[in-house]
Amino acid sequence: MQAPKNVITNHAARLVMRPVGEPKRSDFTFTDEPLPLVQSGEMLVKVEYLSLDPAMRGWMNDAKSYIAPVALNDVMRAGGVGQVIESKHPKFAAGDYVSGMVNVQTYCITDGKGFVKIDLSLAPLTTYLNVLGMPGMTAYWGLMDVGQPKSGETLVVSGAAGAVGSTVGQIAKIKGCRVVGIAGGKDKCDYVVNTLGFDACIDYKAEDVKKALKVTCPNGIDIYFDNVGGDILDAVLTRINLRARIVICGAISQYNNTEAVKGPANYLSLLVNRARMEGIVVFDYAPKYKEAAIEIGAWLAAKKMISKEHVVEGIDTFPETLMKLFKGENFGKLVLKV
Amino acid sequence: MQAPKNVITNHAARLVMRPVGEPKRSDFTFTDEPLPLVQSGEMLVKVEYLSLDPAMRGWMNDAKSYIAPVALNDVMRAGGVGQVIESKHPKFAAGDYVSGMVNVQTYCITDGKGFVKIDLSLAPLTTYLNVLGMPGMTAYWGLMDVGQPKSGETLVVSGAAGAVGSTVGQIAKIKGCRVVGIAGGKDKCDYVVNTLGFDACIDYKAEDVKKALKVTCPNGIDIYFDNVGGDILDAVLTRINLRARIVICGAISQYNNTEAVKGPANYLSLLVNRARMEGIVVFDYAPKYKEAAIEIGAWLAAKKMISKEHVVEGIDTFPETLMKLFKGENFGKLVLKV
Repeated sequence: MQAPKNVITNHAARLVMRPVGEPKRSDFTFTDEPLPLVQSGEMLVKVEYLSLDPAMRGWMNDAKSYIAPVALNDVMRAGGVGQVIESKHPKFAAGDYVSGMVNVQTYCITDGKGFVKIDLSLAPLTTYLNVLGMPGMTAYWGLMDVGQPKSGETLVVSGAAGAVGSTVGQIAKIKGCRVVGIAGGKDKCDYVVNTLGFDACIDYKAEDVKKALKVTCPNGIDIYFDNVGGDILDAVLTRINLRARIVICGAISQYNNTEAVKGPANYLSLLVNRARMEGIVVFDYAPKYKEAAIEIGAWLAAKKMISKEHVVEGIDTFPETLMKLFKGENFGKLVLKV
Repeated sequence: MQAPKNVITNHAARLVMRPVGEPKRSDFTFTDEPLPLVQSGEMLVKVEYLSLDPAMRGWMNDAKSYIAPVALNDVMRAGGVGQVIESKHPKFAAGDYVSGMVNVQTYCITDGKGFVKIDLSLAPLTTYLNVLGMPGMTAYWGLMDVGQPKSGETLVVSGAAGAVGSTVGQIAKIKGCRVVGIAGGKDKCDYVVNTLGFDACIDYKAEDVKKALKVTCPNGIDIYFDNVGGDILDAVLTRINLRARIVICGAISQYNNTEAVKGPANYLSLLVNRARMEGIVVFDYAPKYKEAAIEIGAWLAAKKMISKEHVVEGIDTFPETLMKLFKGENFGKLVLKV
């Protein structure tokens, strides 16, 4: 017997090829299929915004990682926000706005695992994909747990105009650090300094990063929050202080490599400086998301922090919009309006 | 007025060229000079054994590090043990045996800074250059402070037949870990397993290290104590567990590089596994040396640990004897009998 179908048609982006190097349109296919019926314990979410993240590139690889790869022909994994339009789940009701792993599709039927209700009276929907969402949690816990900022210390963060980087820097400023960003292009650097309030921002496309770090970090670097890896990580390693903490959050410069990742040639600076390099994965902090969200929410309300999203419209643009991340074309947290 | 001279002639190895790649005889010159007279607050030590360490290679470079480089034409820096033959120092008397930075020479006049008395009734002189000396302190504190071994965990250590590595492994066994060494050659591996009591030892000269780690560490790697860097560090990174600790103690495979150091291409395994890579320098633990020495002394007395030294005779062999370290020709802690 065939399962009864929902009257709603779901439009979804499925991963059909594992990308070699940069992901491209032909690695995906878009399908239109009737949704199954909502079962007891499930809810149906109409997806409104998708979060596009560098980490998605890793999920496309058939490799052991902190999360299983997306299976071929499955809907591409993505976080997002949307509205519940039908619920047989005890904790969620039709009309609720929720955040969770909705994946790259127009509708999502879920058992609610990992989903949370969000309150639009506190912040707009897209903020829940940014400073009140994964990037915010990543920034907050990576910085607080591994970076351990102390007032008066110098923090450097790469990807400074991006979702995680801009939040890391804003929090570090609140915590009393000297904050230096690294970003690509004058517009981003101006934004990082003038709008986000960093002390300085190095344009890695126009400046010699090593020299610029010497000028902007006269007292050396105590914390480096790394989103990019590659040559910038190596440059920072030449300027770290005794007992420096390097938070390995990502390495966007290396994700589309078809050759080996460039390891940090200057890693022995860790030895010389008795410094620490430690990786973080945001999901580990799930039990503490709420704690961070309360503090970040208060900073937003007090105008001590801003949440900037870069919104692109149309689920069908997914492959090209995702590539904006790797080309550095996004300005703030990249979200796709479905 | 010329300073009055001592009747004793000092024979010393001085660094006259900064080595490019491997240090060679022509980078040093041997001088014979009358010693100055011992001044108030000083003592004269007759050097008996010198400690030869991989770190000495770094001290020869004109580069910022955890310790100033040896100046050109200065006596080469070295730790060692010897007997006080004249003392105008309040804390040391003629006849005392001492350990400290005596440098590569037959006699040393010192203000006693960093020197400690050693007790030959507890252990032979050379043990104080090995498990009761710098290598022992490095092994103990690197392992306990950064490695943080827990019973049942798997520890891997490179340079397993060397001074630091053999001590790390023996302590980790005492702490209840599964211990796998990595060393070069069958003789060393046999020694590591049969004499030191490690659970296994990988011969990196004969085996595929990555495959051998899979076999010998079926439950993955919780602690890696790295003395070698290079490809072995990269191989280990592919097998680490969640929350693994990597102690960066040295990178002997890279010290004589004339090109850039090989950074760990697999460092993103730190991210995937939320693991930590941290450098250590033994001098940081000076206030706690005694604590470690008491525990190690008890293990030696209880025959739970052995201290093996590889003794080469003749101060004039210094350049070639030092090279044994980089060629992997030493078997146990390398010391030079003066």
